[in-house]
Amino acid sequence: MHDAGMRTWVDAVGNLIGVQGDHALSERWSKPTILIGSHLDTVPNAGAYDGILGVMIGLAVAEHYRDQDLPISISVVGFSEEEGVRFAQPYLGSAAMAGSFPPQWLQLQDQAGESVAEVIRQFGLSPESIALAAMPVDKVRAYIEPHLEQGPVLESKGLPVAVVTSIIGQTRLLVRFKGEAGHAGTTPMNLRRDALVSAAEWTVQVNRMGRSVADLRATVGRLNVTPNASNVIPAEVTLSLDLRHADDALRLSSVEQLLQQAVQISQDENVEFEVLQRSDSCSVKAAASMVASLTDSIVDGGLEPLAMTSGAGHDAVVMGQRFPMAMLFIRHPGGISHHPDERVNVEDVQVAIDVLTRFVKRLALTESRVTV
Amino acid sequence: MHDAGMRTWVDAVGNLIGVQGDHALSERWSKPTILIGSHLDTVPNAGAYDGILGVMIGLAVAEHYRDQDLPISISVVGFSEEEGVRFAQPYLGSAAMAGSFPPQWLQLQDQAGESVAEVIRQFGLSPESIALAAMPVDKVRAYIEPHLEQGPVLESKGLPVAVVTSIIGQTRLLVRFKGEAGHAGTTPMNLRRDALVSAAEWTVQVNRMGRSVADLRATVGRLNVTPNASNVIPAEVTLSLDLRHADDALRLSSVEQLLQQAVQISQDENVEFEVLQRSDSCSVKAAASMVASLTDSIVDGGLEPLAMTSGAGHDAVVMGQRFPMAMLFIRHPGGISHHPDERVNVEDVQVAIDVLTRFVKRLALTESRVTV
Repeated sequence: MHDAGMRTWVDAVGNLIGVQGDHALSERWSKPTILIGSHLDTVPNAGAYDGILGVMIGLAVAEHYRDQDLPISISVVGFSEEEGVRFAQPYLGSAAMAGSFPPQWLQLQDQAGESVAEVIRQFGLSPESIALAAMPVDKVRAYIEPHLEQGPVLESKGLPVAVVTSIIGQTRLLVRFKGEAGHAGTTPMNLRRDALVSAAEWTVQVNRMGRSVADLRATVGRLNVTPNASNVIPAEVTLSLDLRHADDALRLSSVEQLLQQAVQISQDENVEFEVLQRSDSCSVKAAASMVASLTDSIVDGGLEPLAMTSGAGHDAVVMGQRFPMAMLFIRHPGGISHHPDERVNVEDVQVAIDVLTRFVKRLALTESRVTV
Repeated sequence: MHDAGMRTWVDAVGNLIGVQGDHALSERWSKPTILIGSHLDTVPNAGAYDGILGVMIGLAVAEHYRDQDLPISISVVGFSEEEGVRFAQPYLGSAAMAGSFPPQWLQLQDQAGESVAEVIRQFGLSPESIALAAMPVDKVRAYIEPHLEQGPVLESKGLPVAVVTSIIGQTRLLVRFKGEAGHAGTTPMNLRRDALVSAAEWTVQVNRMGRSVADLRATVGRLNVTPNASNVIPAEVTLSLDLRHADDALRLSSVEQLLQQAVQISQDENVEFEVLQRSDSCSVKAAASMVASLTDSIVDGGLEPLAMTSGAGHDAVVMGQRFPMAMLFIRHPGGISHHPDERVNVEDVQVAIDVLTRFVKRLALTESRVTV
């Protein structure tokens, strides 16, 4: 960041921030800013690109404009703790920057019993100053997060980048079908209360709904059978449902429909059905003006524009609740993320840098019109 | 057995045998015999009736005829090691009595590394004499095994006993569907290779076949998902199939049809399908003449006769390959076997004793006609 001509600091939660210019830090918001970045952390045994790629792309864009006096500055952020690996709470860094870090998060403990507050202090920072990490909302014109797609869509379409128009909402369920164990040889089919048959029928219906509703993603990823012996009729099955869609109402009505189907199955099969856990999170929309500018910046490069929904969470979820937000997805060869095999094409990274360079120019132009 | 006026011995594999009469043991087969019995062992943490109930019923029948000089004797057997808990090999006792104990079984080891031969020797018996445990085939007119049903059929029909006409054959499969892991949020439905969706579809088809083919029993009892995380598309599922039917050809054609369906599913879902393990055992039929006599003995008691197929294995499987065999099932309240809750109605036990008492009289009558 220093090499790119930026002034840098680390805020109270450990985010690393750089802003263009040689002014004193107290003057850093003299111009409105475009904030580009992503997270510095990833998961254990991960790849080399998740998160950090977006920070490096931001840096390249800032470097590009190093010697130009734009009406806006470019800032680059590397967020701390996006994954939530240590404290089972994601978005610690971006929540602080968006001003939505709840004080009780400071008491969260890692597996060794150390709290967020203690760890921040050990790092030489001051947990009492977290509120000061919030970025001034009137100075941030745009938060833009370049990120690996972490999925196969761009690769399947043969495109290097896409504009993310929304980050999808999600419902997570843990449910249970409960029947009765019995001897696989001595219990006739019509006297069975087989929990796995019900769970299998529901899994098939979940998949059928996922395929029939456009852009819905419906997954049973976890399924555990009790007693799980080849000659015993399954007495109990717990299974997860992960359901995601950019349209919250559609997601919620799909959940409702699947729950009704589960109840119907449980009645038909004479087993019990129960929802053990449920959590819901709403979708977040990108700023329409930013989506338009990003799309134009892609088309200006002679590329086909593609609008995508992000199926995974990102710092942009939290930042988008406070600042105008958009994301730029970068093609992910093989689609394997959070794994040493994580890859990216150098050419695609160049495309992303070029797109964002044009995007910054567009925003700078708008800003000069606004300020004139 | 001594109280019932029997001479007793323990054979080389540990079976306990009693035969009516006060003759010297060397004279024990001077008359042909009806052998009634079952196993003395059961599983750990089991109930009070599995196996031993059949031995006690045999004893009651022998006691009933204690002072009558029939043209046949009554023998009672309590088999050792039917369950196969210690050496993972069932039917040690009945195989020795049926003359089908393979010498290599003596080398089987328990978890502590002790062999069958060593354990037999520690019990004061002689493993070298196992061949002598074989009963003379020309002297055993009938082997009859009274046993708890270990299932719900008699209870559901409101009947105390049933005649077992065959013990069903069984195919056991362990199969695998192999797809590809992926992010549950970022992978569109049409780009997925979800192993659990395939496994669920197949499980539904297995159940459908079980319900559509009369007397078929089809069970997926074990199912394991990899990686089994709620936000990861399942990459691999291994599952078991237990398929049983009294008609071996029908069982084998059903297996074939299910395997073809699995291959079809795997092609439709773009996953791989593989059979990891397979074992087949054929069905064993009861002797028609014994089935007829037993049925008459039930009707003579004013009861409705019921013919059943045994879905579980019993010593009768092995004994039936050497001797005329039949089984008498006794109603199993609650149907829970191999569990401390195992129960039986005293009245049903009395019915079973009465039926077998009449059955013995019928066989004795036949024998006197033969010998006259």
